[in-house]
Amino acid sequence: MKANETVRKKVPLVHCITNYVTVNDVANALLACGGSPIMADDIDECADITAISQALVLNIGTLNQRTIASMIKSGKAANTNKIPVILDPVGAGASSLRNETTKRLLAEIQFTIIRGNLSEMSFIAGISSSTRGVDSSEEDQNNDAPAIAKAVAQKYHCVCVITGAVDIVTDGTRMARIHNGVPAMSKITGTGCMLSGIIGAYAGALEDPFQAACHAVISMGLAGEISYEKHQKTGTGSLHIGIIDALSQIDDAILEERRKITYEANC
Amino acid sequence: MKANETVRKKVPLVHCITNYVTVNDVANALLACGGSPIMADDIDECADITAISQALVLNIGTLNQRTIASMIKSGKAANTNKIPVILDPVGAGASSLRNETTKRLLAEIQFTIIRGNLSEMSFIAGISSSTRGVDSSEEDQNNDAPAIAKAVAQKYHCVCVITGAVDIVTDGTRMARIHNGVPAMSKITGTGCMLSGIIGAYAGALEDPFQAACHAVISMGLAGEISYEKHQKTGTGSLHIGIIDALSQIDDAILEERRKITYEANC
Amino acid sequence: MKANETVRKKVPLVHCITNYVTVNDVANALLACGGSPIMADDIDECADITAISQALVLNIGTLNQRTIASMIKSGKAANTNKIPVILDPVGAGASSLRNETTKRLLAEIQFTIIRGNLSEMSFIAGISSSTRGVDSSEEDQNNDAPAIAKAVAQKYHCVCVITGAVDIVTDGTRMARIHNGVPAMSKITGTGCMLSGIIGAYAGALEDPFQAACHAVISMGLAGEISYEKHQKTGTGSLHIGIIDALSQIDDAILEERRKITYEANC
Repeated sequence: MKANETVRKKVPLVHCITNYVTVNDVANALLACGGSPIMADDIDECADITAISQALVLNIGTLNQRTIASMIKSGKAANTNKIPVILDPVGAGASSLRNETTKRLLAEIQFTIIRGNLSEMSFIAGISSSTRGVDSSEEDQNNDAPAIAKAVAQKYHCVCVITGAVDIVTDGTRMARIHNGVPAMSKITGTGCMLSGIIGAYAGALEDPFQAACHAVISMGLAGEISYEKHQKTGTGSLHIGIIDALSQIDDAILEERRKITYEANC
Repeated sequence: MKANETVRKKVPLVHCITNYVTVNDVANALLACGGSPIMADDIDECADITAISQALVLNIGTLNQRTIASMIKSGKAANTNKIPVILDPVGAGASSLRNETTKRLLAEIQFTIIRGNLSEMSFIAGISSSTRGVDSSEEDQNNDAPAIAKAVAQKYHCVCVITGAVDIVTDGTRMARIHNGVPAMSKITGTGCMLSGIIGAYAGALEDPFQAACHAVISMGLAGEISYEKHQKTGTGSLHIGIIDALSQIDDAILEERRKITYEANC
Repeated sequence: MKANETVRKKVPLVHCITNYVTVNDVANALLACGGSPIMADDIDECADITAISQALVLNIGTLNQRTIASMIKSGKAANTNKIPVILDPVGAGASSLRNETTKRLLAEIQFTIIRGNLSEMSFIAGISSSTRGVDSSEEDQNNDAPAIAKAVAQKYHCVCVITGAVDIVTDGTRMARIHNGVPAMSKITGTGCMLSGIIGAYAGALEDPFQAACHAVISMGLAGEISYEKHQKTGTGSLHIGIIDALSQIDDAILEERRKITYEANC
């Protein structure tokens, strides 16, 4: 069975502890690609919710002391229950709290997949970075994304996804470069968060986290392309809605037809 | 005067203590149907806000200890001020915290209307349920929704609304079955939350909570139908926006023309 | 260089501590007009985030004790770092907590620009007001908005913006009356919040806060007009999306062509 068909058939329940800026988009993107979202961040229920889920997504976009504790607790519950855990370290590098929280999450939880931009992932790799808010800084574009992704994947024994002009997915051995997506997606808040949510759905439905991440990255990039073809002259409000539209219409046939991916078996 | 016209004329202020996933949609749905939303969840102001409102909506979708206390305080203020209180027990049955909170709210507050899916309402009725996240589980579809709704209405002296393929509204004596709506609405997060918000607007403007609930349920179902007719081939992003569009255009003439409702005077 | 071109070139980072109802729209509106949003409200990181930003926007729409403390801390950091601070006193007048918080913010922080409706600004000016929820009450429409705006600007040494049928912008000496915008904008939640966000972007990119506020008010009003021309028969969901679309397409040429503004050099 194909990847997207599998997600739509299994309807994985994806527990998200995520930011309040883009949470609605994350939920609708998850539903659109075939998953089922559940948001719950109270310390007294988060582990219960993780226990009934097929994947957990932790996103530190608007972290606070209350939700950090819940992320730790749910992350550990996910490890105990052997369900995949995805980290989206939004703005890592931008404040001491984000830096310390990212380090603590990485120390206490075994992540299955980590997804971020080059600034965030440079921070995780331990390379000095110049994060500017929650967006990747231009200086970082000169860094070597594949090398950083490989370093993160090997250091944390996980799949690492770095999104940018070219998206990189690696498990430390296999490496994929994905050329789907359009620059205009950066003019909408939450395309990264939505992608992390979708990665949760694919990882909750498929066996191989590397393949799950690749399918999710292609889906999100392709949704951006399809929406941009339709709405580029209309504006970013329609581009935003069009991405959800496209995610809900995507199937394996179009993913196969339009994916722009190159693989390396031994990176 | 007709129901929707009354809402649009009275512009009831509806205080919502609700989840952060769908709160924007709840506010826009309330405005679209003629109400006026106000969201306030701090313990130091929630009772003040309830006191100036015409209805209160409590939704436990992303409950936490801070907002549970505010729900209790505002619920009691609403009872004191004799304004209608609506409960949306999102995910009741899915975690101990949701179960305990639901029980506590039901013990300390006299609700006017309770709205949920069959899983949530089975939990409230005390029937063993298999909640799967925040969506009604398939097994529950075999249960007897009208009987459960009647049990909840009689036990808690309120109007009970169970939404599903057929929506049930009952006050324990009168029962309505509403056949508006389309299955695709479940592919958008928040259609249930929006409905609970709209029920608040109708209950804040009309005398009879049973009639208020029926009008709100028909409005939401019809908005889903109208949007689906227009956007079914476009995707769920447009379906979502189209529901708000339709809610803002609906009037009593179209509600009367397109409603699919059957009544029973003594259920 | 023209105002909007300057914003799009400088891409000011705008730190928002804002409500969870409209936060997604604020972020997307900021991106659409050329700014870059960052939302962060934890006391342990808010000053760090303010320090890397070009403007700070404080919006009390869903205030709570946790975020009030962060607003104070970030406001002081902004004053220390000499970056502009914008206040949106949502619902001031509607509860003791909102009143006390507004007074405390005004006492402890030097604001660059304050934006609200006539009810909120009457409260700040110390004129008895009849706030009804978060919307300006009808009685207030009879008050003298320009006089109130001037009083606030002079009392707090800032630019004051009162939005309504006619928008007023004054620094206590100069006064602008802006006639852009359409009444239907009040049927969407968050047009005020979005405007306050955009004011942050313009204030973060331009020298003169009075001019920054005028450009932002014209942009938002014009976006409403453009969207209304296109979507008035469709509904408020599309009107909402169309406002973001228009903001992303607006440039200085159309702002100059369609602005409806009158200036007074000595008000």
